[in-house]
Amino acid sequence: MPYFTLDASSLQHWLTDHADLAFRLGGDPSDWTIREVSDGNLNTVFLVDGPVGSLCCKQALPHVRVAPEWPMPLERALYEARYIRATAEAVRPAAPELYFYDDEMFLLVMECLTPHEVLRTALIRDEVQPGFSTTIGQYVARSVHATSWISQPFEHGSKLLADFAGNTALTRITVDLILTDPFRPCSRNPAPEAALLPDVEALHTDKPLHRAVGSLQDRFLTARQALLHGDLHTGSIMQHKDDVRVIDGEFATMGPIGFDCGLYLGNLALHACAAPNKRGLIEAEITAFWNSFTTELRTLLKTGGGDVWALSDEAQREELLENFLIGILQDTTGFCGLEMIRRTIGFAQVADYTLCTTPESRTEARRKALTIGRRLILEAANVATLENLLALMLLA
Amino acid sequence: MPYFTLDASSLQHWLTDHADLAFRLGGDPSDWTIREVSDGNLNTVFLVDGPVGSLCCKQALPHVRVAPEWPMPLERALYEARYIRATAEAVRPAAPELYFYDDEMFLLVMECLTPHEVLRTALIRDEVQPGFSTTIGQYVARSVHATSWISQPFEHGSKLLADFAGNTALTRITVDLILTDPFRPCSRNPAPEAALLPDVEALHTDKPLHRAVGSLQDRFLTARQALLHGDLHTGSIMQHKDDVRVIDGEFATMGPIGFDCGLYLGNLALHACAAPNKRGLIEAEITAFWNSFTTELRTLLKTGGGDVWALSDEAQREELLENFLIGILQDTTGFCGLEMIRRTIGFAQVADYTLCTTPESRTEARRKALTIGRRLILEAANVATLENLLALMLLA
Repeated sequence: MPYFTLDASSLQHWLTDHADLAFRLGGDPSDWTIREVSDGNLNTVFLVDGPVGSLCCKQALPHVRVAPEWPMPLERALYEARYIRATAEAVRPAAPELYFYDDEMFLLVMECLTPHEVLRTALIRDEVQPGFSTTIGQYVARSVHATSWISQPFEHGSKLLADFAGNTALTRITVDLILTDPFRPCSRNPAPEAALLPDVEALHTDKPLHRAVGSLQDRFLTARQALLHGDLHTGSIMQHKDDVRVIDGEFATMGPIGFDCGLYLGNLALHACAAPNKRGLIEAEITAFWNSFTTELRTLLKTGGGDVWALSDEAQREELLENFLIGILQDTTGFCGLEMIRRTIGFAQVADYTLCTTPESRTEARRKALTIGRRLILEAANVATLENLLALMLLA
Repeated sequence: MPYFTLDASSLQHWLTDHADLAFRLGGDPSDWTIREVSDGNLNTVFLVDGPVGSLCCKQALPHVRVAPEWPMPLERALYEARYIRATAEAVRPAAPELYFYDDEMFLLVMECLTPHEVLRTALIRDEVQPGFSTTIGQYVARSVHATSWISQPFEHGSKLLADFAGNTALTRITVDLILTDPFRPCSRNPAPEAALLPDVEALHTDKPLHRAVGSLQDRFLTARQALLHGDLHTGSIMQHKDDVRVIDGEFATMGPIGFDCGLYLGNLALHACAAPNKRGLIEAEITAFWNSFTTELRTLLKTGGGDVWALSDEAQREELLENFLIGILQDTTGFCGLEMIRRTIGFAQVADYTLCTTPESRTEARRKALTIGRRLILEAANVATLENLLALMLLA
């Protein structure tokens, strides 16, 4: 079927033509309830409820959903489908199941997550069940194990490089919005509040910072360690009680493992800037993430299986892994800093700052995020332990 | 035309059907002289002379030419054609021109290099014109500029990742023959001479060495800095007087820049082990390579053009480049050590050792290459200057 943009009515028709999916819903099409719940920046999302089951249908639009003048190739849906297929077995049950991908409609039909809530929203409402970051740490470690050169024959990684290298439209967003724009005058950057303007302008001329960002640009594009989610922030995670799921893998690319870790921790640290009373919760979540990530990765990688470290026995792999983890922590620190800055002054800012009750406290929260972000970028190479990172975040 | 293995007669027929190529030769097919000159391990090569011009025709075989029981996908010819196309404009005139690629016959038709000689052969015969390494240093720098994330928009590198990630059959050779086999018992390794057996066996149980090789395995597969030739040894270079050309790019892959540099320098350093009287020449060539490589790269990369270092002005890029060059030198040192070891005791050994006039001197030369190679691998991370590298090679 040639591509067209679905609405509730045409989606009902499309589902009727797909017996397996209609069977999951049960009843007749007239029994189904279809709601559009688009929330992210890029795509339309429908939830479909039937007498027996429910579905989540996500379709790519030919433009950015929230900025229709910004064209965006439909193929991003293909990369999300590939990402889910490349990681599903390893991360189950921490991601929704993909039931069907329509490569002409650029439509993913997935497990419906209800009554789940977006983690960022739950954090803002103070409705999270603490410890959710343990699942995210395991999720990243298991993705790494499924896709890294240490744990898989190199032909597997080469296939992933080939499968995801074409995802340039979304990687261009990362390169521009995270790695470049916040540090230069750019029409995509929203005008900051007047009180923050000097801080923002200082970032545009901060040469030591630009040098350090240059190193992170290099890491992001050259250090192809494993398949990344590529956009692992608290808005890409759904949770209900202790069921935590990662969604929205359309930014997937082979890259440095610390990129996923850094984006996740950056969004947590931002939350602590916006809600200083929750510093204890955030410190505990960051610690839970790093502990579960490293514990899981130590277990999964010690048996090897890849061409990298193939000459080393289990004892030596454990030793190599400790250095590897320090490298990941340093990348994590740098990318965390980038995320804190870009989510504070870049194109895609976060709702966490709505927790600030006065303009003054919001400016103060943002200034704190910029200060911490800058320090993380500059000090990344000196970080050797989680405590070092927490101290830089003013959370230790 | 479905694939079949060409001989002189069928090649003449094939050329007759390709008017542009026949025109380059001139005259009638009966005027053409076709000689098979296959010399490398993998392919058949014919030189065709006509009244007006000449051609070099290189066809992939479905197996390793020198080991017919070892199957090898024909697609390696495609990757060589892609490599030439990706680098030709940048490196001209240091590579032969590709006139035509037949993707069904897996046949490359190229500029014929006569009366050029393989550099390794010329070195062994002591017939080189000193300074040839200046061209090779420029060649590597210009390839880097044409394909790196510092000098090109990242979409260019992503395209190269996609175009070359499928070259797994030849990358598997690199992973096995260079990065793994020499350090473990393996049926592909020829039995060493008895006097060298203890040295070879020591490499199989050398844990600190295995740890360092593990880091180089990681660098080779994860550090996707630029498009590599992938097999840049003195047998992949033709020269006649001061005309120096790089051939045989079928191992091309995105990888660490120091891999190409290290293989080249490793083959020079091996030559000095086999012919100690030529240490002065080799030291001068290694110095010429590194000086021309770094001088050219400093000039080419200071203007930027890529997404990496995009925030930095020319002065800061120069500063970043100095650190970048130290990283390349450290990679070069490690891969140089791997190449010296694998060319001495691995599957594909080198003819340079025929310069040793007695079995004892040959064993001594090989032992020296193993000792230097091991030291280069172990000390790579401590190298900061060319002088450090030359000292480790016992050439300073």
